[in-house]
Amino acid sequence: MKAKVHVTLKNGVLDPQGKAVQHALAALNFGGVDEVRQGKYIELDLTETDPAKARESVEKMCRELLANTVIENYTVEIEA
Amino acid sequence: MKAKVHVTLKNGVLDPQGKAVQHALAALNFGGVDEVRQGKYIELDLTETDPAKARESVEKMCRELLANTVIENYTVEIEA
Repeated sequence: MKAKVHVTLKNGVLDPQGKAVQHALAALNFGGVDEVRQGKYIELDLTETDPAKARESVEKMCRELLANTVIENYTVEIEA
Repeated sequence: MKAKVHVTLKNGVLDPQGKAVQHALAALNFGGVDEVRQGKYIELDLTETDPAKARESVEKMCRELLANTVIENYTVEIEA
């Protein structure tokens, strides 16, 4: 079973990495880019076969390791 | 118009960041994790209103800046 996790900065939290990408795009003459936000994307291969249990386990991983919940949000997708 | 970009390492390319996460999860007693791969997730706000043109522009950004196409794949999703 596969899990896809997105970890993104909460709204209002400064994103220097995104700003750097935005400025680099401007320097490369890509116009019309209003904002860039950069997050993490994590794919996990799990031996768990029950989607509900898999989701519960991955959400626990997010809270304990993958995301800093003070400044970051996470979303979990479970795929068969 | 919003664009969501995923940049992931190609299969077969060593992913030390993913391995580090995997080992950290094991150290926190999360069992049943076979593999972890970590990539980047980038959200762009574009002024472009034509989805086809927006996709073309973002794919160019991926090739020129966001992804290292020697070792990374990218996917682009365009949202209204």
